[in-house]
Amino acid sequence: MAQLESWRAGAAKSVITDFVTRVTTVGGPDFLPVSERIATFDNDGTLWCEQPLQVQFFFGRDRLKAMAEKDPSLAQRQPFKAFLDHDMAAIRDLGMRGFFEVAAATHAGLTEDEFEVVARDWLLTSRHPSLGRPFTDLVYRPQIDLIAYLQANGFKVFIVSGGGIDLIRSFSEGVYGVARDQVVGSSVKTSFELRDGVGVLVKRAEIDSFDDREAKPHNIGLHIGRRPVFAFGNSDGDLAMLRYTKTGRGPRLALLIHHDDPEREFAYDRDFRVSPLAEALDKAKDYGIEVVSMKDDWATVFDQPK
Amino acid sequence: MAQLESWRAGAAKSVITDFVTRVTTVGGPDFLPVSERIATFDNDGTLWCEQPLQVQFFFGRDRLKAMAEKDPSLAQRQPFKAFLDHDMAAIRDLGMRGFFEVAAATHAGLTEDEFEVVARDWLLTSRHPSLGRPFTDLVYRPQIDLIAYLQANGFKVFIVSGGGIDLIRSFSEGVYGVARDQVVGSSVKTSFELRDGVGVLVKRAEIDSFDDREAKPHNIGLHIGRRPVFAFGNSDGDLAMLRYTKTGRGPRLALLIHHDDPEREFAYDRDFRVSPLAEALDKAKDYGIEVVSMKDDWATVFDQPK
Repeated sequence: MAQLESWRAGAAKSVITDFVTRVTTVGGPDFLPVSERIATFDNDGTLWCEQPLQVQFFFGRDRLKAMAEKDPSLAQRQPFKAFLDHDMAAIRDLGMRGFFEVAAATHAGLTEDEFEVVARDWLLTSRHPSLGRPFTDLVYRPQIDLIAYLQANGFKVFIVSGGGIDLIRSFSEGVYGVARDQVVGSSVKTSFELRDGVGVLVKRAEIDSFDDREAKPHNIGLHIGRRPVFAFGNSDGDLAMLRYTKTGRGPRLALLIHHDDPEREFAYDRDFRVSPLAEALDKAKDYGIEVVSMKDDWATVFDQPK
Repeated sequence: MAQLESWRAGAAKSVITDFVTRVTTVGGPDFLPVSERIATFDNDGTLWCEQPLQVQFFFGRDRLKAMAEKDPSLAQRQPFKAFLDHDMAAIRDLGMRGFFEVAAATHAGLTEDEFEVVARDWLLTSRHPSLGRPFTDLVYRPQIDLIAYLQANGFKVFIVSGGGIDLIRSFSEGVYGVARDQVVGSSVKTSFELRDGVGVLVKRAEIDSFDDREAKPHNIGLHIGRRPVFAFGNSDGDLAMLRYTKTGRGPRLALLIHHDDPEREFAYDRDFRVSPLAEALDKAKDYGIEVVSMKDDWATVFDQPK
């Protein structure tokens, strides 16, 4: 049985293990059949580092740089200009949707197989700007352990992210142990074409769904078709998902990670313009959401470099 | 190990069992890891009876009748008028999308929990117009056995249907053994609302996706994120999905059920105006699609009434 060794003993760990014990105790009042053990996790800031900006930003920017070398006119058009000029105020104003729009624009025309190669190559070769490690090294060890713990207890774990669905899928099985079809995220429209006799999905620049705020419950309904009993987020963008989860009948657990650990990661909440944590933090008690302190509740944050 | 006793010995059964043996033989040239064993099935006409019209039609019409008793003006508006007048030519012209639009219009305003109750009640109480049995009795025994056989061999089985995603989910786990999140179908937009403090998804009349033809590969990309290696359909509406599946690299199997059994079910193909089988039948050999004869290849069609 997977354990939560990366979680310090305390209220947060207890509320998780108590909940899982209750819903898995056969004959108990809160027992849930396996089919109802649905857990959803946000990705940016919940499963991996989102500072100084979400990974989606770096992904789009790097591709944009390569494209601008071939087509300098890109550098004169917004929002591309802001990305290429490192205009941080303008970049932060774009928010997560803006990052996704740029990433979508720069990957339009690729087939899904081509995109997979681009995404995997980029994740292998790119590095976090200050921490100097691959972004997939900057996943939170306690969350990896928690996903494994939930799966070992019969939960089906889904990622529900504002990030691009196919970028996350390119590493979700290897890094999180979450199958590609259990990833929900922002997505673009595609065209089905036959190229050299092979049917392919070609990515278009047009956004199909920006999976943030109220879109998260909608996409949970679309992709999962069942209200989660467990949800974990870190910003106001996750509040609708957390409340959708928490306000159902029966046993429910909604959690929010608070980035209060400048020594090991970062300390931020309402001041993070891209994806602030304000209402969810102020109203957590009213809404029955459990706030987890990165500083106090996590024994480790990242695995040591290999 | 699940067996295919409801399939007669012959070419169709052999092609299935040979394929499954090849992709599950460790060390063999066609071995696939479990994560790549993705199978998709159409629903109407592939997993259950779609004659004289798709179940979605009867579902929408019955709800429309109840609504028209309260609001007689509905009977003056198309496409509702055609449904209520039993104008069969007009109804058939509407096609599957028209059936879904009517069902969507008649369920707008319901929460997902309310819809689930409506769908389950309707499936329990309604009967096929000529066969006199509940629609969920009119699922094909050989396909239920095939789903179980694939699952026993490590396949993750998905339904990819033009029918309403939540109608299928209301019986997919009990009847097909397919989890709700493994159902893909036509869907409507929803609104996230708090009603009496409970977060709910409210169905709107606006279609989000009509999951037919080229939309099937798109929705496979969106929901599954991996090209299937096995697909089963029965009409031109499935052709894009079958070709998407069949034209990938490595071992692939695409199958088409031909309704040629007027004794036990129905005989139809290119004459079925709602969802014809014409191009897929004419080009099956060119496209490498295996045609399955209901009459010859299936030892049973439906289970006996209980």
